[in-house]
Amino acid sequence: MTTSNPVFGKDRPKKSGVAPTPSENRSRNYERYLLRRVLDAMGSPRFAVALWDGFKVSPKDAAPVATVNVHSRSALNQLLRQGDMGFGDAFSNGGISVEGDLVAMLVAAFTVPEPTGIAAVVKSLQQRKPRANTKDGSRENIHHHYDIGNDFYRLWLDKEMQYTCAYFPEDDLTIEAAQQAKMDHVCRKLQLRPGDRVAEAGCGWGGLARHMALNYGAKVSSWNVSAEQVQYATDRAKAEGYDDRVTYVLDDYRNITGEYDAFVSVGMLEHVGLDNYTELGSVVDRCLTQNGRALVHTIGRNRPRLMNAWIEKRIFPGAYPPTLKEMMEIFEPNRFSVLDVENLRLHYAKTLAHWLARYDASDEQVQAEFGEDFARAWRLYLAGSQAAFLAGGLQLFQVVFTRERNNELAATRRHLYS
Amino acid sequence: MTTSNPVFGKDRPKKSGVAPTPSENRSRNYERYLLRRVLDAMGSPRFAVALWDGFKVSPKDAAPVATVNVHSRSALNQLLRQGDMGFGDAFSNGGISVEGDLVAMLVAAFTVPEPTGIAAVVKSLQQRKPRANTKDGSRENIHHHYDIGNDFYRLWLDKEMQYTCAYFPEDDLTIEAAQQAKMDHVCRKLQLRPGDRVAEAGCGWGGLARHMALNYGAKVSSWNVSAEQVQYATDRAKAEGYDDRVTYVLDDYRNITGEYDAFVSVGMLEHVGLDNYTELGSVVDRCLTQNGRALVHTIGRNRPRLMNAWIEKRIFPGAYPPTLKEMMEIFEPNRFSVLDVENLRLHYAKTLAHWLARYDASDEQVQAEFGEDFARAWRLYLAGSQAAFLAGGLQLFQVVFTRERNNELAATRRHLYS
Repeated sequence: MTTSNPVFGKDRPKKSGVAPTPSENRSRNYERYLLRRVLDAMGSPRFAVALWDGFKVSPKDAAPVATVNVHSRSALNQLLRQGDMGFGDAFSNGGISVEGDLVAMLVAAFTVPEPTGIAAVVKSLQQRKPRANTKDGSRENIHHHYDIGNDFYRLWLDKEMQYTCAYFPEDDLTIEAAQQAKMDHVCRKLQLRPGDRVAEAGCGWGGLARHMALNYGAKVSSWNVSAEQVQYATDRAKAEGYDDRVTYVLDDYRNITGEYDAFVSVGMLEHVGLDNYTELGSVVDRCLTQNGRALVHTIGRNRPRLMNAWIEKRIFPGAYPPTLKEMMEIFEPNRFSVLDVENLRLHYAKTLAHWLARYDASDEQVQAEFGEDFARAWRLYLAGSQAAFLAGGLQLFQVVFTRERNNELAATRRHLYS
Repeated sequence: MTTSNPVFGKDRPKKSGVAPTPSENRSRNYERYLLRRVLDAMGSPRFAVALWDGFKVSPKDAAPVATVNVHSRSALNQLLRQGDMGFGDAFSNGGISVEGDLVAMLVAAFTVPEPTGIAAVVKSLQQRKPRANTKDGSRENIHHHYDIGNDFYRLWLDKEMQYTCAYFPEDDLTIEAAQQAKMDHVCRKLQLRPGDRVAEAGCGWGGLARHMALNYGAKVSSWNVSAEQVQYATDRAKAEGYDDRVTYVLDDYRNITGEYDAFVSVGMLEHVGLDNYTELGSVVDRCLTQNGRALVHTIGRNRPRLMNAWIEKRIFPGAYPPTLKEMMEIFEPNRFSVLDVENLRLHYAKTLAHWLARYDASDEQVQAEFGEDFARAWRLYLAGSQAAFLAGGLQLFQVVFTRERNNELAATRRHLYS
């Protein structure tokens, strides 16, 4: 178990000090004025904001879904000056807390009208360009997020450690069953057959490779630059006795070699970086058989937008969810033909609801091992992600593709549903 | 019935004259040399080419699927100088004929390696930019193709006059059944419910609107700029008594007004022109309800390429099949969310095989009414289209989309297959 705090490191935000004495430290008129102006500009979203001295702004036309409590002047300053980044950091350090439904509050914040004029400029300045994904950079970025410690993720993921969107063909599936359904959905889309050789780019803790080998008779080679994940997956394959059918390789996807009947990448494209999409496609072109099938599963957008500044800085360095248009740089220059695109946006919202419930149930343990700031930051990250999928700011695309001249295609997609 | 020949008009290619006398008119060494060079540059495709005097070049490594007979020096010149355009015109005027499997010969021609260097430049000069699709231009372009006469299309289309890709969930469906299956597939993708108001852009002879009204209880308004098609559809709605539920409007899709629960466009985007995609999206944005569903069905490409020169000039003026990337200009600027893309490429190849068989069975009637040149030109167009779908040069995309904030989505696509 990692005991240091890899999320905050040297950029750790400052504590916002002790609670102010109301008599000396009442909120000032200009602070109240600015707060009202900000909420007005957001179209009076459906949450209230209360300051440390009890001053409160409520939504104009509706009951609030939650109250954002700003506990000090410095937290208010963080919020007013730094927008999303300030909110995220102040939420993490306890300077801001949310009473009521955190996800609903964030959905309300995410569905405000688009800023225009100077507000749009300010907002764009607050967004962050993702850090570069050179081979060295990728390793560092991935280490930041995935090598927090397997035990941390085990607290709230399913037992196959699937840290990507699950699939809920029935509404009441458990997260365990929905992750199995996701893996089956992917395998069916790839029309996996016994003996198929599969290359996987970005394998997480190895669950999909394991599933393909044990349930579909495939022979899988999986690449990943996270040392902790590869160690976990390899150990498990040996212990459970299928290491003759699955090989986990600690290396960059750009170094994939061999020939394969199928290529799959679930939840890696977010870390690849736009500049590398055509190269990713050429890796597939290099290793796929003539009639091979391929699938990319990724968080995406409807329109190009940079990552939320706070998430890019504190949680997911180097991440960028692409639009479908941007994804075409993988396929077009490499003469691939897109066969099927499915948008599973609301499945990811549901997945995150499950994760968040489990995470909250492990709250004490996370706080004890990682500290309160870390625990709050991750809670905000999970709730914010759920809200973004609910509000339509994030999408989940599964894209199936093949070579242009492959005529051995399934006539329909019925095999996905039988 | 139109008795003039609208395809060839004043650009009608010249007849290639009477058959040459072998003794005076043997093919010359430089002609034979050029022919060999052209076929070598194509990688020795799997068809033979025979000249008027019996000189013949056969494929190097395989039995030919067909023989291209070049009946005169002027036909050979047309072919060598004008590439696809020359082949098309000479095939139409009888200067070139194909003995054997025409579709297989065209597949072989379409799957030659990409030209490089100077050959690529020559090829690109032979491609044609589509004519502009201003409102007036669109009307003229559409008139050229669709107002040949309803009776002509009735000879070889199904009884619902569906002149777009059919859907063959079972391999042995008749074209009648496969066109019904296509319309059902579209209606299911749109999750049509009784009472839904539907706007249709580009309705052909009105079959889909009729299907939606009669089988799904929808109320449909359909726009089309082809006078003959609108007349046919309107007459039929009145005669069959559903003109209270379907309105056919002789106008440009850009003039669509009203509010609708669903928007559909099958086989119109090919005629819209890239410059107008964002405006098409804004028409949908203007008329779709908050949780409305929309579908665009179009011929497409894997990579941007201009239309085949001969087809653009002689058959389909103004046509351009877009890539998925290009199609995103409909969705992204208008904040639409793509839910589902399905590529039905091989279904269109099968559809064209059915059409071609019916067309060939009506050959005498077409020749008698439109002349031999027209009959041959349309045969080449249908066979060439089938070959292009088989060879992967053309795709068929069905894209389902909705507003970004619509959360009333089907969890799965199972309803398409039950």
